[in-house]
Amino acid sequence: MGLAIARNLLSAGFEMTVYNRTRSRADELQDDGARVAATPSEAARSAEVLITMLSDDIAVEQVVFGEGGVLGSLGRDAVHISMSTISVALSRRLAREHKAAGQQYIAAPVFGRPDAAQAAKLFVIAAGPDEALKYCDQIFSAIGQKTFVVGENASSANVVKLSGNFLIASVIESLGEAFALVRKHGIDPEQYLDILTNTLFSAPAYKNYGGLIAHSRYRPAGFELTLGLKDVRLALGAAEAAAVPMPIASVIRDRFITAFARGLGDADWSALGLIAAQDSGLES
Amino acid sequence: MGLAIARNLLSAGFEMTVYNRTRSRADELQDDGARVAATPSEAARSAEVLITMLSDDIAVEQVVFGEGGVLGSLGRDAVHISMSTISVALSRRLAREHKAAGQQYIAAPVFGRPDAAQAAKLFVIAAGPDEALKYCDQIFSAIGQKTFVVGENASSANVVKLSGNFLIASVIESLGEAFALVRKHGIDPEQYLDILTNTLFSAPAYKNYGGLIAHSRYRPAGFELTLGLKDVRLALGAAEAAAVPMPIASVIRDRFITAFARGLGDADWSALGLIAAQDSGLES
Amino acid sequence: MGLAIARNLLSAGFEMTVYNRTRSRADELQDDGARVAATPSEAARSAEVLITMLSDDIAVEQVVFGEGGVLGSLGRDAVHISMSTISVALSRRLAREHKAAGQQYIAAPVFGRPDAAQAAKLFVIAAGPDEALKYCDQIFSAIGQKTFVVGENASSANVVKLSGNFLIASVIESLGEAFALVRKHGIDPEQYLDILTNTLFSAPAYKNYGGLIAHSRYRPAGFELTLGLKDVRLALGAAEAAAVPMPIASVIRDRFITAFARGLGDADWSALGLIAAQDSGLES
Amino acid sequence: MGLAIARNLLSAGFEMTVYNRTRSRADELQDDGARVAATPSEAARSAEVLITMLSDDIAVEQVVFGEGGVLGSLGRDAVHISMSTISVALSRRLAREHKAAGQQYIAAPVFGRPDAAQAAKLFVIAAGPDEALKYCDQIFSAIGQKTFVVGENASSANVVKLSGNFLIASVIESLGEAFALVRKHGIDPEQYLDILTNTLFSAPAYKNYGGLIAHSRYRPAGFELTLGLKDVRLALGAAEAAAVPMPIASVIRDRFITAFARGLGDADWSALGLIAAQDSGLES
Repeated sequence: MGLAIARNLLSAGFEMTVYNRTRSRADELQDDGARVAATPSEAARSAEVLITMLSDDIAVEQVVFGEGGVLGSLGRDAVHISMSTISVALSRRLAREHKAAGQQYIAAPVFGRPDAAQAAKLFVIAAGPDEALKYCDQIFSAIGQKTFVVGENASSANVVKLSGNFLIASVIESLGEAFALVRKHGIDPEQYLDILTNTLFSAPAYKNYGGLIAHSRYRPAGFELTLGLKDVRLALGAAEAAAVPMPIASVIRDRFITAFARGLGDADWSALGLIAAQDSGLES
Repeated sequence: MGLAIARNLLSAGFEMTVYNRTRSRADELQDDGARVAATPSEAARSAEVLITMLSDDIAVEQVVFGEGGVLGSLGRDAVHISMSTISVALSRRLAREHKAAGQQYIAAPVFGRPDAAQAAKLFVIAAGPDEALKYCDQIFSAIGQKTFVVGENASSANVVKLSGNFLIASVIESLGEAFALVRKHGIDPEQYLDILTNTLFSAPAYKNYGGLIAHSRYRPAGFELTLGLKDVRLALGAAEAAAVPMPIASVIRDRFITAFARGLGDADWSALGLIAAQDSGLES
Repeated sequence: MGLAIARNLLSAGFEMTVYNRTRSRADELQDDGARVAATPSEAARSAEVLITMLSDDIAVEQVVFGEGGVLGSLGRDAVHISMSTISVALSRRLAREHKAAGQQYIAAPVFGRPDAAQAAKLFVIAAGPDEALKYCDQIFSAIGQKTFVVGENASSANVVKLSGNFLIASVIESLGEAFALVRKHGIDPEQYLDILTNTLFSAPAYKNYGGLIAHSRYRPAGFELTLGLKDVRLALGAAEAAAVPMPIASVIRDRFITAFARGLGDADWSALGLIAAQDSGLES
Repeated sequence: MGLAIARNLLSAGFEMTVYNRTRSRADELQDDGARVAATPSEAARSAEVLITMLSDDIAVEQVVFGEGGVLGSLGRDAVHISMSTISVALSRRLAREHKAAGQQYIAAPVFGRPDAAQAAKLFVIAAGPDEALKYCDQIFSAIGQKTFVVGENASSANVVKLSGNFLIASVIESLGEAFALVRKHGIDPEQYLDILTNTLFSAPAYKNYGGLIAHSRYRPAGFELTLGLKDVRLALGAAEAAAVPMPIASVIRDRFITAFARGLGDADWSALGLIAAQDSGLES
């Protein structure tokens, strides 16, 4: 994901210094004109804008607040754009601490799969101080097809991102249950998929995940189940912080944990469909 | 629904005798060329094909098996097409008893809202004996844009219909939770709807129900909440009969019951969004 | 259960005619002084009080309303005491139809396991017309240690019985989850049981079901899982009829169905503990 | 809680220095012979055994790891007994960091309400290194009626404590649902309580919480709902860390959040019974 975004920014003419824990991945960008830094803080030192795209809260915390973290090396008035899917709590802390350091902070998670990232067709959900958002507008345009600004509280963008992943997980789980139901009634899953996607549910999520479930094709993972579990956990955390019960999210969390306990952590998150099949005795 | 279907059949040139409990509703079809019967059994007596479109199991049982029911008056080899959203158990009984009476039985529930019915754009999900299905093919073409035949067991069509309504209810409930989450984080519900439907969720179900929830517009009902509760109950019944756990359906059933207990039985089934808002303290 | 109850009534000096589908089971009571009838209606014909103890709604419907059912043969003013765990809906129908036939109807389900039945230590939950209850008082005293009268609506007794079985099922499921949790944290299940039952949870239900779960001893069944599923389904039905959401009951129903789909229908209902263990990867 | 425990330790002859954020609460112990420290670190400095009894993870983190925290002032080989109900993750961190500092760590949460604490009748669930446990044995005897040692991993004791509170919350929620069910069927809640506690459910948890629910007496709180929510959250966290799905716990968490959102955060945790009543239309 980060690689595709970086390439599009380089193509658009931005000067860039890149860092990746696995150096070879950063080196791939050298031919495209990027400088490669040896540490995050080196990458941040002279940047006007720092973009982070990392796997989870822990990775972001380490890179920003850890020893040699970018919080210390990023210049005054520089902007940190965090594109990672992280917790609302961490996003709030980033806003607070960057502000205290005289820096700016934008949360800008994205919707879209790797091919959308390559084609610069991501949807960017951005939030943060107006001025900083304007300053970064061309960056967003270079990587996505549309930018949605959801307010001045950076964490609002994270809430929207997490809610979106929750909605996709809901599609997966409900499809899993529906496929188990029709299969046990002797209906052909392929035909069922055909009916669904040609009548009520033409949305890509239904075609994509319905197809994976209809064909029990859970590996390789397009999006790993453990990441799905993480995102639902973060959505539930954001919900609890705002006193919002989310019973469907709770069900999905339990199903993800069951899938993980049964060794499906590295399968695609649509493997919830396998759990539904197992729980109804269709597969063991 | 029944009215629109009947009109389209009359337009297509079918001869028709109609019956409705509320006689005036049947009379509306007289100008279109329909004969009006005084009882269901009178309507059925000389019919080659009998179509029933009723609100629930009890209504169908009465019309078919009750005193003066159509089972007794329908001729040998005549076909009963049941378009109602009924239980799998009743559909199986209909298949059994019509067969015993030397009659044919097809289950053919439809997907589509009233405007689709008027435009002859319904999707017909049909199941039953091959021959009978072929015999009725022109009927389905006259009322819908596409017919999906899901096998020889009539009840398969009911399973598909119920699973479809379960999937829609899942969309509603998950949207309700997502809207409660973002609203409590200070995000504008209209903008949120705009983001969802312009990125991941372009399907009509999201636009339609998302719009109702974003604007808290739960009356008048497009589809009454009590009917939604009924359909989820029937889906759970079909699931239990086939030993399929459906945790999402269970959550939705409980939410529908809560909504009903709070006086929302005659609101649109998207009023699950109001329950989500109430349970998070957004509305009382 | 019925056998033990009958023996205690015979010991108490009641004259009795008995019927069982499996004749040999009725014959066992001959030595104790019972007459054996060839059909339910023969047993009912001259009875002042008719007691039924059957497995489910279908059995009761057949015996009461079926061809040769007792409704037709029971005399005017005679009392039907239904001790079976049946649906609230059927209990209401029994009240209605017995009344129409000039007969009396009491619902009197019991709490207690087979050994309590033998020792005449059951708890009787009774409801129905005052006069009829008084008339049957000595019957209840002969089989139980205490009678609780919960009102004039017979079905109230069924509600209480179903709610009690729901509460036991809740104990089982919550214990199953707790044992899975502590086992995966390396805690010895026997010691955990010892802690629970010697601190917060001295009630017999915890000792009994906790013991079965701690030792994974799910066969032979003390109470079959399919009966547990039936009772939770009936509780949910009674709840829906009164517009009461019961999310815990919904979870338990799904777990029972999962257990059934995995071949545990004839195991003890505490086999929910096995499902909890399987879903957390402790057993396969 | 801490006050009662301290008094019993003083009575048993232990020398003690106490600290409380609200100094007056510490001063109450002066007459009993305690020295009062101005800071946690002062209290810890010369202690052989340090006991902490605090409200949550954050409080423990501050006192132990914060500026002037006890980790720095506690002597080598001294023992820290943490009696607070805290997360498994924090208990693990405490074990790790105390070990690194050459100190010992025991987790010893307790079961029992304030009156049990006063009467030195608590149940102590203890885990940690054998030697340290033996060293502290007389401390546990002075405050409780029985000590259960659940292993060398300190966090095991926290798991047992959290699982116990989860089981109590399950009792409350299932009682709430059962009471709503019977009330809507017209059964007197007091009589229902009487039936339950005199038949199947004689355990104190049922008498206590059943009584509060039967009388809708949710204030003042014996144990605040927000603390119940916290404990279920911690149980779910411990479960997720060990890959254990806990669907009942998830339901309870959602109900606690709903109760909190409706302004019941400071009510007794049995106020889940009010949510059940509201959701079935019994109260508004």
